[in-house]
Amino acid sequence: MSRRGVLTVISGPSGVGKGTIIKRLFEIEDNLYFSVSATTRKPRDGEIDGVHYNFKSREEFEHDIETGEMLEHATFSGNYYGTPRSAIEQRLSVGKDVVLDIEIQGAKNVKKMLPEAVLIYILPPSIDELKRRLIGRNTEDAESLERRFKTAYQELHEAPEMYDYFIVNDVVDNAATKIKDIIEGERCSKNAMQDVLKQILEEAENLA
Amino acid sequence: MSRRGVLTVISGPSGVGKGTIIKRLFEIEDNLYFSVSATTRKPRDGEIDGVHYNFKSREEFEHDIETGEMLEHATFSGNYYGTPRSAIEQRLSVGKDVVLDIEIQGAKNVKKMLPEAVLIYILPPSIDELKRRLIGRNTEDAESLERRFKTAYQELHEAPEMYDYFIVNDVVDNAATKIKDIIEGERCSKNAMQDVLKQILEEAENLA
Repeated sequence: MSRRGVLTVISGPSGVGKGTIIKRLFEIEDNLYFSVSATTRKPRDGEIDGVHYNFKSREEFEHDIETGEMLEHATFSGNYYGTPRSAIEQRLSVGKDVVLDIEIQGAKNVKKMLPEAVLIYILPPSIDELKRRLIGRNTEDAESLERRFKTAYQELHEAPEMYDYFIVNDVVDNAATKIKDIIEGERCSKNAMQDVLKQILEEAENLA
Repeated sequence: MSRRGVLTVISGPSGVGKGTIIKRLFEIEDNLYFSVSATTRKPRDGEIDGVHYNFKSREEFEHDIETGEMLEHATFSGNYYGTPRSAIEQRLSVGKDVVLDIEIQGAKNVKKMLPEAVLIYILPPSIDELKRRLIGRNTEDAESLERRFKTAYQELHEAPEMYDYFIVNDVVDNAATKIKDIIEGERCSKNAMQDVLKQILEEAENLA
């Protein structure tokens, strides 16, 4: 009897460097599966179905929402984006660890549907630093930057309530290693070990 | 602002090899403080006060129980044994991680008094193996062995309810590494990071 997989959700405010940390995490830890999102957006040149996204028709996606197959979903620019449930659950049931990269509202929904999910929130070293990183992107006008700041502050207020772990992104390698540590620890959690525990209790029962 | 220390309580049924694992843990992880128990038992030859035990008079110990200074205590052969609170809390408050080696009833009391405590339970690879290890000690008559088995089975039934993490002791090095991983992960827990979180929220508040 083996352990169940660990489902890890990673979130963080815009500009915190989450993408870079997750990329590094997958370089230092092989035994992780990154959940591929579903979308109704048309594939761009070079994008492969099942690799970059699971491309779906609007009808398929809405059907998946109705049946509960979407753990969470959101709409951007008129397209659906979401996290398919069955591929994740199938992997967890055979002891594979799954990582999701989703924002705070999506994380809330995942936690509601799969309460065993481990929620990690990436923090900036300081708010000033977060501002610098957002401005450094230099892709936005003052107004949309201001909106991003506001969203980031609001998220930072909601996060402590919801999330289980908090990692300060000062050095990418350290932050990635901390996520690895958390996942390794969670592989021994009561939830991950439930089948092992059950088996040993049955053995004790039979011998008592 | 730095993180708070992690308080880890390690328990396991008699014969599971907990002592060996904890010894190994302290070899592979320097930044841990092992809490020294207090006792009213007289020091044996070579035992140093504050190293092997905090030796106390019966009056002192009973006073500590009354004031809540004993996180947990028990009586063996007419002597008190217990876990002093203030030395632990002082270390946690400055970000030092503390390890306690106590049995299941003591762990329950520690958790009640310090709910942030992380509880780890060591499991045998199998019940047969636990039996073999208990018999292998060869220091007891059949009757007291039978009593140990019974206690171990009973503990195994109580543990899943109480404990946060479960580690199978198949290979000592692996088991010790898993405890290290759990502690490293818990250094990023909401509790350990509460002061860091507070500071960053205040910063966000001031800039919002």
